[in-house]
Amino acid sequence: MINIKEDKRLNPLNHSCAHVLAQAVLRLYPESKLWVGPVIPEGFYYDIDMGDVTLTEDDLPKIEKEMKKICKDGKRIVRHELSRDEALEMFKDNPYKVDIINNLPESEVITAYSQGEFTDLCRGGHVDTVKECKNFKLLKVSGSYYKGDAKNKVLQRIYGVCFDSKEDLDKHLEELEEAKERDHRKLGRELGIFMTSDLVGKGFPLWLPNGFTVRHILSEYIMNKELRSGYEHVFTPPVGSVDLYKKSGHWDHYKDDMFPMMKIDKEEYVLRPMNCPHHMMIYKNSLHSYRDLPVRIAEIAQDFRYEASGALCGIERARAFTQNDAHIFCTPSQIKNEFKKVIDLILDTYKDFGFKDYSFRLSLRDKNDTEKYFGNDELWEKSENELREVLKEYGVEFYEAEGEAAFYGPKLDVQVKSAIGHDVTLSTVQLDYQLPEKFDIDYVAEDGSKQRAVVIHRAIFGSLDRFVAFLLEETKGALPLWLAPIQVSVIPVSNEYHLDYAREVAEELRACGIRVHLDSRDEKLGYKLRESVTHKIPYALVLGDKERDSKNVSFRKYGTDEQGVMGVNEFAELIKKMKK
Amino acid sequence: MINIKEDKRLNPLNHSCAHVLAQAVLRLYPESKLWVGPVIPEGFYYDIDMGDVTLTEDDLPKIEKEMKKICKDGKRIVRHELSRDEALEMFKDNPYKVDIINNLPESEVITAYSQGEFTDLCRGGHVDTVKECKNFKLLKVSGSYYKGDAKNKVLQRIYGVCFDSKEDLDKHLEELEEAKERDHRKLGRELGIFMTSDLVGKGFPLWLPNGFTVRHILSEYIMNKELRSGYEHVFTPPVGSVDLYKKSGHWDHYKDDMFPMMKIDKEEYVLRPMNCPHHMMIYKNSLHSYRDLPVRIAEIAQDFRYEASGALCGIERARAFTQNDAHIFCTPSQIKNEFKKVIDLILDTYKDFGFKDYSFRLSLRDKNDTEKYFGNDELWEKSENELREVLKEYGVEFYEAEGEAAFYGPKLDVQVKSAIGHDVTLSTVQLDYQLPEKFDIDYVAEDGSKQRAVVIHRAIFGSLDRFVAFLLEETKGALPLWLAPIQVSVIPVSNEYHLDYAREVAEELRACGIRVHLDSRDEKLGYKLRESVTHKIPYALVLGDKERDSKNVSFRKYGTDEQGVMGVNEFAELIKKMKK
Repeated sequence: MINIKEDKRLNPLNHSCAHVLAQAVLRLYPESKLWVGPVIPEGFYYDIDMGDVTLTEDDLPKIEKEMKKICKDGKRIVRHELSRDEALEMFKDNPYKVDIINNLPESEVITAYSQGEFTDLCRGGHVDTVKECKNFKLLKVSGSYYKGDAKNKVLQRIYGVCFDSKEDLDKHLEELEEAKERDHRKLGRELGIFMTSDLVGKGFPLWLPNGFTVRHILSEYIMNKELRSGYEHVFTPPVGSVDLYKKSGHWDHYKDDMFPMMKIDKEEYVLRPMNCPHHMMIYKNSLHSYRDLPVRIAEIAQDFRYEASGALCGIERARAFTQNDAHIFCTPSQIKNEFKKVIDLILDTYKDFGFKDYSFRLSLRDKNDTEKYFGNDELWEKSENELREVLKEYGVEFYEAEGEAAFYGPKLDVQVKSAIGHDVTLSTVQLDYQLPEKFDIDYVAEDGSKQRAVVIHRAIFGSLDRFVAFLLEETKGALPLWLAPIQVSVIPVSNEYHLDYAREVAEELRACGIRVHLDSRDEKLGYKLRESVTHKIPYALVLGDKERDSKNVSFRKYGTDEQGVMGVNEFAELIKKMKK
Repeated sequence: MINIKEDKRLNPLNHSCAHVLAQAVLRLYPESKLWVGPVIPEGFYYDIDMGDVTLTEDDLPKIEKEMKKICKDGKRIVRHELSRDEALEMFKDNPYKVDIINNLPESEVITAYSQGEFTDLCRGGHVDTVKECKNFKLLKVSGSYYKGDAKNKVLQRIYGVCFDSKEDLDKHLEELEEAKERDHRKLGRELGIFMTSDLVGKGFPLWLPNGFTVRHILSEYIMNKELRSGYEHVFTPPVGSVDLYKKSGHWDHYKDDMFPMMKIDKEEYVLRPMNCPHHMMIYKNSLHSYRDLPVRIAEIAQDFRYEASGALCGIERARAFTQNDAHIFCTPSQIKNEFKKVIDLILDTYKDFGFKDYSFRLSLRDKNDTEKYFGNDELWEKSENELREVLKEYGVEFYEAEGEAAFYGPKLDVQVKSAIGHDVTLSTVQLDYQLPEKFDIDYVAEDGSKQRAVVIHRAIFGSLDRFVAFLLEETKGALPLWLAPIQVSVIPVSNEYHLDYAREVAEELRACGIRVHLDSRDEKLGYKLRESVTHKIPYALVLGDKERDSKNVSFRKYGTDEQGVMGVNEFAELIKKMKK
């Protein structure tokens, strides 16, 4: 979505529209005192002390109407320069503005902007006339502490957005609506995927039964794929000694993103931010000959990173998350083939999920930056070429980003375009020449000599958590049948006459491995059908006299007009077929 | 196994035998200086400064021979009382004994014990003559720092054990051998189940691919059982705020067993020692009516407890472990039925694993201890009676332990007798009236009133980790077919002629969901067969000319004489049948 604050045209337009809003509020609520009205990436807002008035969304149309009138009047927006004394005199009735003026640096030229009867203290950046502001929409209203301090008075914050044309505005509002519908936090709550609790901890979501089912299916899905591709799975503790992370270099370079150290007796531990060092220790647990390589160690691994509480966002960005991680230990001559196999795995997975709009970014070193990219020049050259060749062989879309490689090696990120237009990095493949040095990752070569191995880090889903957030956003919560936590809701028309048959049907479907919810509540059929739709359950079965007597089921498929009647076994077969 | 230190007869016997050992060493190595020779639960040892001599196990027979001679001489063991000066004079050539004498409290009567030419400074507790010590065995030798300080000299520590009769000694040595064979740390290493690394952290084992497979099968097994019993699974973070554990009471009562707090910004977090509070928050995430109860929330949950490094033992006792945990939220009238269902689940699980030697311990309150057992008297009475009734209805063996209940409610522990005679507590069911109070765990009753629910904590496997340790010990590592990380090893007689066919067979079996290892190393057939046995793989397939040409497999079943020849499909069917 467009960043209005950073758009050269939309920034002043929205700034002026904030003034129009303020002018309208002063007309309607003359006792109001303005504080500030900045442009933000989403549009603008104005913070206003409205005394005892607490606005609700219902008040917005009235304000919008007044704003329209102001725009129609079409007054010019005029800039004035003021001395400090003039400014203090002009805004003497508004303690908020007086406070701002008193805090302006001596050197600053104080300005105000006027339109008709309205004048606001303002650094400017405005359009010429208020007429240009007419394509706006007020979005919401909320309380907001003066200066953001909970000890201060609550002001009314009114949000809005403004565009040059009605078409642009309508398109934007549609996109907003769409994004709201697809917000994984809203869907996660409605569909029982996860919950959050400040008492448990900010950024530590709890996965509810439906969410657990999705996570579990995804884990099993990817682990089975990995098993077939020659990976071995391990399970390692989400904690490591500080010494481990000193050895890996994380303690020096990544400490700010880590949780604080825990000291017990004389030992120092830390929640791990990533599990590479653990996998290095597993490789080193036994001797390896060139015959054993590549060794592919995979884990559905829990990691922890410190994120500022303001940056947290549901399961998309949390402080605890689960990586679909793996490390491949191979010889330099195996790099190309291993990269190929990882890309196979990525594309194969995307195919299963129906992702079609993705691109590869090949991050290379900057040859001139020998400080960041030290080490074997020839090896860098060779492996960059190999990665490029692999991508060309696949014929996938990719672009090269020079100077974007990690200091430890070139990498490949796969970015998938989301339904609301974000570029989301899901998968990554990274070559690493450094970790093998730090951990003495060796193998015995054919000639009996000890050789250094290469490590490839790779993730397919990225983090399971973010992947689920992405899927919810993509599907608006209508997960594909094989992932749906509940696949079929079984609804007896009347509990009195049809519950026994409904139980029978539910049991039969469960025995076929189908995830069933039997809705035996004493509610009307229509209500239960609506609930099945609200919960985006792929199939609803309605069971009444006719179905019971003929031992059939009537089904309705979510999101389509598809419905029908068939035998229970036939329906179970249909579901099994659909799952594939 | 018997605790020798705590046995009235064996303690002095082993003490005297330590003197016999010291006497023999002084005869064979006259330059040696004795330090101390205490009795320990496993027998005795003596720490001796032997100058430049480093003993190995090969030296023990020679020492044992000399000890036998001393025993045969049959000298009486005689006690002397000494003044401090006499003692210092007597041991003046031994700086270790001089140090001990100088550190004895003024009030202590100093004694020495003699047998023949040998006298040792000793507080005593001895048998009458060395003749009684003849049924002994030296067990091992190791280096040991003087006073346990790594900066001091390394002494030679010789371990032994002594019994009254040859029969007792032989039986004990057999048991030792058996326990060693069954030690889960030894088996865990040999079978690739787990590894430990001080760099990762003491008490933080890493599960290797074979161990992961076993864990994963166990998790899936118990989750499927739970699903069929009406449980819902969740996934919650292994971290909680300190406030959460203050609310639950753990911070006040359990802090010493927890890891230290992590403070970020103004928030305080801690690795969770148990996940009850998380499940309380999940229950509280929605309103519950009596119609929804019981709600059964289960999790394969990672928890962390601080254990002193000396108490750690492989995966049996670690600082991170995974509980097969669940909390049942029900009305008081549902307690009995829920207890029944949990016992059903426990017994059903034990049957699957073939556990037959177990007993239930019913822990009740002490009615007189009203300080520990406060709260609703009637409720205690009623629920204790109900638990007793349930056990009687089952006709299982149980005993009652008054005053052993948790302060929050009565509980039931299931103890399984292990192969080496330990009583291991695997499963537990605990009633809790306190947590519902602390977290306001309510439901809406039939009459519309708000009522407090009851919580039942329960674990079937206990911790997955300890359960695997237990299984390894029970089976000596020969896990049953359905749990074996590798079920079939496929061995071509010659890589040159039979590898292609072996690959084909391996692929076919894998496609049937069988876990196969193809041993394609350039090693002799005999070596590979031995390796298959060492790794306790249930079936070894040998594929040579005959098998290839007839499209058959020759199999050998681990631990039996069973072998045979059959088609690949037939063999796959056999395995599938055996798995059930």
